[in-house]
Amino acid sequence: MRARHAVRRTAEDVRMRGFAQRHTVKAALEWLDAQLQPLPPENLPLRTAAGRVLANSVVSDVDVPGFDRVTMDGYAVVADSTDGASAYSRLPLTVIGDSMPGRPFDGFVSAGEAVRVMTGAPMPPGADSVLPAEWIDVDESDLVHVSALTAVSPGKNVGRRGEDILEGTLVFETGRILRPQDLGVLSSIGRGEVRVVRQPRVRLVVTGNELLGAGSRPHGFHIADANGPMVAALVERDGGIVDFPGIVPDDRDAILEALRADADIVLVSGGSSVGVEDLAPMLVAEYGELAVHGIAMRPSSPTGLGRMEHRLIVLLPGNPVSCLCGYDFFGGRAVRALGGRSKTWPYRPIRGVLNRKISSQIGRLDYARVKMQDGRVEPLAIGGASMLSSTTRADGFVIIGDDSEGFAAGAEVEVWLYA
Amino acid sequence: MRARHAVRRTAEDVRMRGFAQRHTVKAALEWLDAQLQPLPPENLPLRTAAGRVLANSVVSDVDVPGFDRVTMDGYAVVADSTDGASAYSRLPLTVIGDSMPGRPFDGFVSAGEAVRVMTGAPMPPGADSVLPAEWIDVDESDLVHVSALTAVSPGKNVGRRGEDILEGTLVFETGRILRPQDLGVLSSIGRGEVRVVRQPRVRLVVTGNELLGAGSRPHGFHIADANGPMVAALVERDGGIVDFPGIVPDDRDAILEALRADADIVLVSGGSSVGVEDLAPMLVAEYGELAVHGIAMRPSSPTGLGRMEHRLIVLLPGNPVSCLCGYDFFGGRAVRALGGRSKTWPYRPIRGVLNRKISSQIGRLDYARVKMQDGRVEPLAIGGASMLSSTTRADGFVIIGDDSEGFAAGAEVEVWLYA
Repeated sequence: MRARHAVRRTAEDVRMRGFAQRHTVKAALEWLDAQLQPLPPENLPLRTAAGRVLANSVVSDVDVPGFDRVTMDGYAVVADSTDGASAYSRLPLTVIGDSMPGRPFDGFVSAGEAVRVMTGAPMPPGADSVLPAEWIDVDESDLVHVSALTAVSPGKNVGRRGEDILEGTLVFETGRILRPQDLGVLSSIGRGEVRVVRQPRVRLVVTGNELLGAGSRPHGFHIADANGPMVAALVERDGGIVDFPGIVPDDRDAILEALRADADIVLVSGGSSVGVEDLAPMLVAEYGELAVHGIAMRPSSPTGLGRMEHRLIVLLPGNPVSCLCGYDFFGGRAVRALGGRSKTWPYRPIRGVLNRKISSQIGRLDYARVKMQDGRVEPLAIGGASMLSSTTRADGFVIIGDDSEGFAAGAEVEVWLYA
Repeated sequence: MRARHAVRRTAEDVRMRGFAQRHTVKAALEWLDAQLQPLPPENLPLRTAAGRVLANSVVSDVDVPGFDRVTMDGYAVVADSTDGASAYSRLPLTVIGDSMPGRPFDGFVSAGEAVRVMTGAPMPPGADSVLPAEWIDVDESDLVHVSALTAVSPGKNVGRRGEDILEGTLVFETGRILRPQDLGVLSSIGRGEVRVVRQPRVRLVVTGNELLGAGSRPHGFHIADANGPMVAALVERDGGIVDFPGIVPDDRDAILEALRADADIVLVSGGSSVGVEDLAPMLVAEYGELAVHGIAMRPSSPTGLGRMEHRLIVLLPGNPVSCLCGYDFFGGRAVRALGGRSKTWPYRPIRGVLNRKISSQIGRLDYARVKMQDGRVEPLAIGGASMLSSTTRADGFVIIGDDSEGFAAGAEVEVWLYA
């Protein structure tokens, strides 16, 4: 296995030798996937749990509702006693009280009696159905003696105890990504806390002597860091917690210290290739395991994968498009999987017909940015790993597998939409 | 116009009269949409701007890169001088220095000379192309005298100044929802702050004497609040900032004070109908404008819309499914639109074939929860507005318009997916 071979590469091997042999994307993903176990669980207040991943299944230990409940504003009655009531044969009823949500009627309803009820109120004992308010004729000077204008059948407008959730019901399975309404259900069964997969802590290491801090005005031969804010936002999208204290100097000690951060994943941007200043791969090989370095893909071929103690290390190229592509293939997958989420892309796939051909090479996977134009797929420049603007002009990307030379104009392709 | 009539309803009209006439969903949306202007902009650090909505277009006032730049590790040379070089006719070159990212070569490259360069480094003056490292033969004992194994054409592996973004380019249009890579581009043109639409502040008012705080264990005739955590998560999903200090007692003064919160939108859950304890609609009619109250839809018919001074008020039913449906139709639309986002649902629509018929009534819109089973659409109980678990068992919902009696088994329908 190629990945196993790579583990034995030494720091000296890495230095200035070029990529002797590139891993396939498939081999790189195989190594990566073997590292990806969801993190341990943590307890979280319900209020902050939307979008988080359940670490265990949830079984209700209560009935919801816990009592028979009125489901419509009106009058609770004994159904059988309303037989034959109609607008032409009004049934006189004596209103003997009220039942309001949280304030039950303290008595018993018999034939010929009614209790005024509101939606959500407990059903008064004796009554078995609710006549909606619009079927009761009320004289405002006499709220006690009213008449029913229709009959009602037993159980009508009554919600039975446990009708929403019965005690013992499996409410959610492990791995559920909590939706807003799930929080409602968890709340209604009395869960103020939920046990969810811990979010991965991701240290972002951006290196490069040419870099100015994100958002600095570029000047001279310096450029502003694009990868830091981009990758930070990607990690957060994928459910990670970002630690990004700023640019790390291209300095052995500084990079080594950053690689040893208190984190589950270290994402390194820049200095990941085989040049003289590409320190990160050498340090990972020296102090940990550099399992994959150099991948047969465009862009992002200098991407590397490894470990340092418990930390997963992903070496991303400094070129912003390469960085994005490497994140999409490897970094994001790791963040999502450690957080208990799906390894698959969070991008929505659609199918479309190519306006122009996209060329690639057998043996190399390509990540081609495309624009959607009237439902057709227009390729943008496939090269230009430094052209981040190609990913903001693009609506998404097309993958050309390493077994393909590309797609002809008119071919139907799958587009992964960024938005 | 029906909405205009409703404005004149008095608090007395509202009390205990039932909904004299229900508004159509269309009429309610027309009134609502007329209230929805995006909020004013605010400045935000780039780092926190992912997912926010640009309040103005962005034009670059710099070139990116700001200099001609190396795009591959190798040797910068004068292209013309390499003509004819090959593995069989090696071209000797004298290495006269290095150009590294942020550390340019301080000299001039002539024919027969080369400068060692790394990706991202400034192009050395005089050189016009880069020979990749693998096409240079280097003897490790003599790093100065090397040989080229191939020729290179002018401009090869060089990124021109401004090739990513030219000064004066319109980078993003107003209204853009910022993606991770957009932050990268904004950073690279030197923007450390962005001007985005302010997020709506949403006060959540949950009323009901029967309610216990979210996540409390239900007991007696009390139930735990499901709507608070659900709606809070929905508002955050839609880009709002939630203010939810807890259950508000069914008390005139307490509800009035809550309706006057410092907020752009007040979402009231519960007490929105026409029962004796439904205070919120009466208070809105008395102190503001109750424009819409009672809508021809199921569930959520007691939904109300109005204003109190600058605040938009959305009265949502207390039944959790009604509350979710009312939020989906009106509350979420308001939160998104005030925040500069699309009024359309954040749910993805797919088409599928119904397993069983769904019945509805002409004149009433229905929101029917459905489950996807092997690509087919299985309706869940369409009634049961109190059965929140129907929305967690469901994969999404189907809308039956008020001009339809429903769909037959085998009909193709549009399903809006919750996840």
